[in-house]
Amino acid sequence: MSIFKDKRFSSLKEYTPGEQPQDKKYIKLNTNESPYSPSPAVLSVINSNEAANLKLYSDPTCSELKKSIAAVYGVDPKNVFVSNGSDEILNFAFMLYGNVAGAVFPNISYGFYKVFGDLYGIDYKEIPLLDDFTVNVEDYKNTGKFTVLANPNAPTGIALSLSEIEQIVASNPDTAVLIDEAYIDFGGESCYKLIDKYSNLIVCQTFSKSRSMAGARLGFCFADEEIIKDLELIKYSTNPYNINRLTAAAGVAAMSENGYYLDNCQKIIENRDYTKAELEKLGFWVLDSKANFLFAKSDKIAGEELYLKLKDKGVLVRHFTAEKIKEFNRITIGSREQMEFFVAAVKEILGEIQ
Amino acid sequence: MSIFKDKRFSSLKEYTPGEQPQDKKYIKLNTNESPYSPSPAVLSVINSNEAANLKLYSDPTCSELKKSIAAVYGVDPKNVFVSNGSDEILNFAFMLYGNVAGAVFPNISYGFYKVFGDLYGIDYKEIPLLDDFTVNVEDYKNTGKFTVLANPNAPTGIALSLSEIEQIVASNPDTAVLIDEAYIDFGGESCYKLIDKYSNLIVCQTFSKSRSMAGARLGFCFADEEIIKDLELIKYSTNPYNINRLTAAAGVAAMSENGYYLDNCQKIIENRDYTKAELEKLGFWVLDSKANFLFAKSDKIAGEELYLKLKDKGVLVRHFTAEKIKEFNRITIGSREQMEFFVAAVKEILGEIQ
Repeated sequence: MSIFKDKRFSSLKEYTPGEQPQDKKYIKLNTNESPYSPSPAVLSVINSNEAANLKLYSDPTCSELKKSIAAVYGVDPKNVFVSNGSDEILNFAFMLYGNVAGAVFPNISYGFYKVFGDLYGIDYKEIPLLDDFTVNVEDYKNTGKFTVLANPNAPTGIALSLSEIEQIVASNPDTAVLIDEAYIDFGGESCYKLIDKYSNLIVCQTFSKSRSMAGARLGFCFADEEIIKDLELIKYSTNPYNINRLTAAAGVAAMSENGYYLDNCQKIIENRDYTKAELEKLGFWVLDSKANFLFAKSDKIAGEELYLKLKDKGVLVRHFTAEKIKEFNRITIGSREQMEFFVAAVKEILGEIQ
Repeated sequence: MSIFKDKRFSSLKEYTPGEQPQDKKYIKLNTNESPYSPSPAVLSVINSNEAANLKLYSDPTCSELKKSIAAVYGVDPKNVFVSNGSDEILNFAFMLYGNVAGAVFPNISYGFYKVFGDLYGIDYKEIPLLDDFTVNVEDYKNTGKFTVLANPNAPTGIALSLSEIEQIVASNPDTAVLIDEAYIDFGGESCYKLIDKYSNLIVCQTFSKSRSMAGARLGFCFADEEIIKDLELIKYSTNPYNINRLTAAAGVAAMSENGYYLDNCQKIIENRDYTKAELEKLGFWVLDSKANFLFAKSDKIAGEELYLKLKDKGVLVRHFTAEKIKEFNRITIGSREQMEFFVAAVKEILGEIQ
């Protein structure tokens, strides 16, 4: 890096996205993408007429997009914020709320929270999960700090109940609480309706997982109007036109066909149940996931070895090196065909090492 | 705004984009967009096949896009950074370099520099332009600070020569110097080749103006490899997938048809010459613009009044309220037909007030 930059960034360790190898075609079960294409309305709105309009700036207020999301969820558009992927909401929220009184989040969770903490020099505390990888709800009550929880958590997939989330939000009335619901549509219970009751709550969601648009970069959140104004302030002070025209159009189209996506979520849940049962038959410990992935380990093979052998067989899963989770792999739930291929590959690998 | 946010943002004044009124159809000469559509290859690459791939994340390394830009400019891809609009590069650069020793930029320039300065609590100095609205080159030599200049400057349109830019860069060897070339393709001389000689130089450009893609959000910059690594560090610590798949594809397509855009720039220059001559015939003082806009005032009518009367007639231009420039309007150069309509409207307005 250059000699010109601020020294406070010298030891910053950036986030590492899942690998996107180009050497061959893989069954990609490593970055929690959807196996299903976006809905028909999305495919038809992305066309040369829309492309011709790229000469004009996008609408910085994103009013149509906000309205379309608000309509599906039955909230007021003024309680909606939209962003260039939900990472951007996390970024803005850490900037806004992280340095007021510090921050807390689980030690095993979305790896980006720690990066934002380091980026902004936030005094943050990573709270250990319990030995069964669940979040201890008591740890997040009365924190007096910016409190961040992924629900379901990643990479475990384990979800808290709505009432547990409400206890956490209610017990921290003086600080912002961010619930990252990137994976909520696969069996968890969203807390977004609590925004009417709690002015400190931010409920973050994304089009990347259940809405098949990871490549469009579109996130959104629900919150009290004053929190939305905070987020808009940072947006208009960093990148007012943060969402491009095509992504905005795709988002509106996707919201008009919500049933298509709900059906896909149901298929993912079925494929998850199938995969979990198969892995358990093979002796894996599989956490109880409400997300579009499973987190699983086997006593018969090391986590890294399984990851590498699967890659050899053309299946990519996500392996993390942190001590407490290094024997696990995170397996994105794809189509039934993909999961059958994955299960067969695991069986082969276990057979080969015996 | 909320009671939860960091108090240091309480007095932050965000950037105000040009108005995008929805009440009627205007001739939009207020946000420096191109009157021409993106090139044929861009129109054809935005299709339902690309939309189907939105289920997959975009390439966080943006390698194809970087290669396509590097090929057109004859540089190494490792000297290229791409971003969600060039505002994102400015944002990252102010974050990285603004708090090392403070920053300097002109008091009349792109309004966002000041916003970034305020956002990051940077000790910045706004250097007054000379009375003829030119930049005094001496003011930017040996600043010892992060030095930011738009070339051509906005909203004046006045450009510095390549040798003047080089003097500024060379005299500040210990601090980063950012030259914002958003409008360089309309008659200015880019300094991007100086990156081989000066490791402190960042040359920022955009697809929004000369490449007809304001709505796609795509910026890029050239710099020494170590500076690029700084920018990548911040990208991977805030939003690794900052560019969506469709914008990346459009960017590659646009770079493959560079001649189309060069021809459009030539048309804009001709339309600018025509408009400037017409305004001068009407007694306007028109600054010597090398950008896709003119900055002009008349002794016969106040800047705000002209702006409002043009809006009544269906023509939007940009009016700023800062004392030193409030008698001016910034007029984006559109198609010849649009500029003829604009000139006729100005003539009518001047006739009506006499």
